[in-house]
Amino acid sequence: MTRSPHPAPPPAAHSHKPDDRGCVLGLDVGGTGMKGAVFDSGMKPLASVHRPTPRAQGPGTVVDAVADALAELGRTATEYRKHILHAGVVVPGIVDEDLQKAVWSANIGWRDLPLAALLQGRTGLPVTLGHDVRAGGLAEGALGAARGARESLFVAIGTGISASVISDGRSVRSGGYAGELGHVVVEADGDPCACGGTGCLETVASASAVAAAYTARTGRAVSGAADVAALTEQGDPAARAIWNRAVDALACALATAVTLFAPQSLVIGGGLAEAGRLLFDPVEAALAARLTFQRRPVVLRAELGDRAGCLGAGLIAWQEAGRAHVSTPTGALTS
Amino acid sequence: MTRSPHPAPPPAAHSHKPDDRGCVLGLDVGGTGMKGAVFDSGMKPLASVHRPTPRAQGPGTVVDAVADALAELGRTATEYRKHILHAGVVVPGIVDEDLQKAVWSANIGWRDLPLAALLQGRTGLPVTLGHDVRAGGLAEGALGAARGARESLFVAIGTGISASVISDGRSVRSGGYAGELGHVVVEADGDPCACGGTGCLETVASASAVAAAYTARTGRAVSGAADVAALTEQGDPAARAIWNRAVDALACALATAVTLFAPQSLVIGGGLAEAGRLLFDPVEAALAARLTFQRRPVVLRAELGDRAGCLGAGLIAWQEAGRAHVSTPTGALTS
Repeated sequence: MTRSPHPAPPPAAHSHKPDDRGCVLGLDVGGTGMKGAVFDSGMKPLASVHRPTPRAQGPGTVVDAVADALAELGRTATEYRKHILHAGVVVPGIVDEDLQKAVWSANIGWRDLPLAALLQGRTGLPVTLGHDVRAGGLAEGALGAARGARESLFVAIGTGISASVISDGRSVRSGGYAGELGHVVVEADGDPCACGGTGCLETVASASAVAAAYTARTGRAVSGAADVAALTEQGDPAARAIWNRAVDALACALATAVTLFAPQSLVIGGGLAEAGRLLFDPVEAALAARLTFQRRPVVLRAELGDRAGCLGAGLIAWQEAGRAHVSTPTGALTS
Repeated sequence: MTRSPHPAPPPAAHSHKPDDRGCVLGLDVGGTGMKGAVFDSGMKPLASVHRPTPRAQGPGTVVDAVADALAELGRTATEYRKHILHAGVVVPGIVDEDLQKAVWSANIGWRDLPLAALLQGRTGLPVTLGHDVRAGGLAEGALGAARGARESLFVAIGTGISASVISDGRSVRSGGYAGELGHVVVEADGDPCACGGTGCLETVASASAVAAAYTARTGRAVSGAADVAALTEQGDPAARAIWNRAVDALACALATAVTLFAPQSLVIGGGLAEAGRLLFDPVEAALAARLTFQRRPVVLRAELGDRAGCLGAGLIAWQEAGRAHVSTPTGALTS
């Protein structure tokens, strides 16, 4: 258990207003690690937990580890004399929020898992399951870069590419299948994608695709897309070609998403967004060149970084607890 | 004033339950004609009106004609001893439902027109403004082909191409800019589009583009896309090439929309849908070939034809009147 950088000291019981006794747990389960926190009614993290996701040991072990992390957060909440109202757990892949099932995840390997019910059984806590990127979009909309936007598109670019669509303050879910921006086809005779298609945006513009393309072209190993970005800035021609191809493909898919959704804010996060202006300047220029009558979105860098999923999990938990304590000009939490 | 084919006879006042006295007006203003109706609480049309849209005389004359049509429907409602609760008017182009403004229409030529307020002033009726294709999507969702689908995409293919997205029973609007499927870029070095872009779906797959392409290629005039469809079935090679190009482009844009929205039902209407299996078979095959893990929608032909917009206007009016009398498994009318 790691305490958050500025934890509130466990206060004496008599200092509490009854309203302040409630808290929620938020947990973001990723392919490599889990991030969780105890959130007070103002979404301040009282304590946090970071653990590896034991995916090599199979989905059953991952479920055990998730239950353990929740239980540990629960014990900490009790230390703080807080009453846990709800727990939000968000996971990658296809998540059906209506059925509360983890339908499919290539990374973790589960399929049609009634994860909320399993975790509830293990921990005795009321648990709601959500999707990591949709939760991240909710957090960026309520607390981060898209604050105040009624419609926003949050795009997470890392190993894969996924998007979260907020319309009228609500997350568009479609049984868990909405927002698969990474599988928009951007190249007619493109490379095969893990999904079975060809030319998907992910094959060109994901952080992992950018790194892999550089190694394939030059024979030189790089540790990730950040290296390719740095080489691009240094004028390396192979890096620049790969970077430009990725940015063009991204702008093409984003222009299409903007034509269909017309978000006010377009928030880009994930590993590739770390490249900053090297990514944002050409994406903005390409969007400006492609859009004509469409509503032009403000293009913003995500503000919440790798905390977005965990914060989104906390927001989902507060929603489920029926208390939207966080100020939300968009109404995202009260809808 | 044309009476609907099976109008209800104006009944004697004493036969009414108080509940049955209410009615609404629905009016769909198109580029060439207007279609309006008086709807009872079960959305049965008691009377209808069809008139040309005098767009050659300018936007002011169109507003006069719309007000006249509403007033005439109002007089008929009074003949039927009905009390008009609300009027819904739907128009093409960019419509901002929040501000109740006709923001822009290439066909009719208005710009930033506070149309609801103008019509309310002219007629004394409470008027709500909507968008023709979003209203058509609402009608197909509540009364037509997409009944029972929680998420649906309604695509209207005529002079232009536009889409209406229903998510969780609600229309995705985004200030009036959502659903511009006709301006998704489908050809990298495509033809110039009226919007200022190039390679937009509308330049290849709209009914007017299909007809124009045939004339451009063969020098032979056709009266519309239906002629090109008929020639395609007769084995005319030029017609077949143009038809295949249109269908491929449509399937490409639809696959992208499905990847982003994941509707359960994909409803295609408008003039091009009249081609029936010649359109639907290859679109379904192309979608099946392109989609991998995505939720596969049921592809359906629109059921309401050119009545969809007018019915949608009536549904909007009932919504505004606070009475969702029509059965809606999706909750589309009550949200």
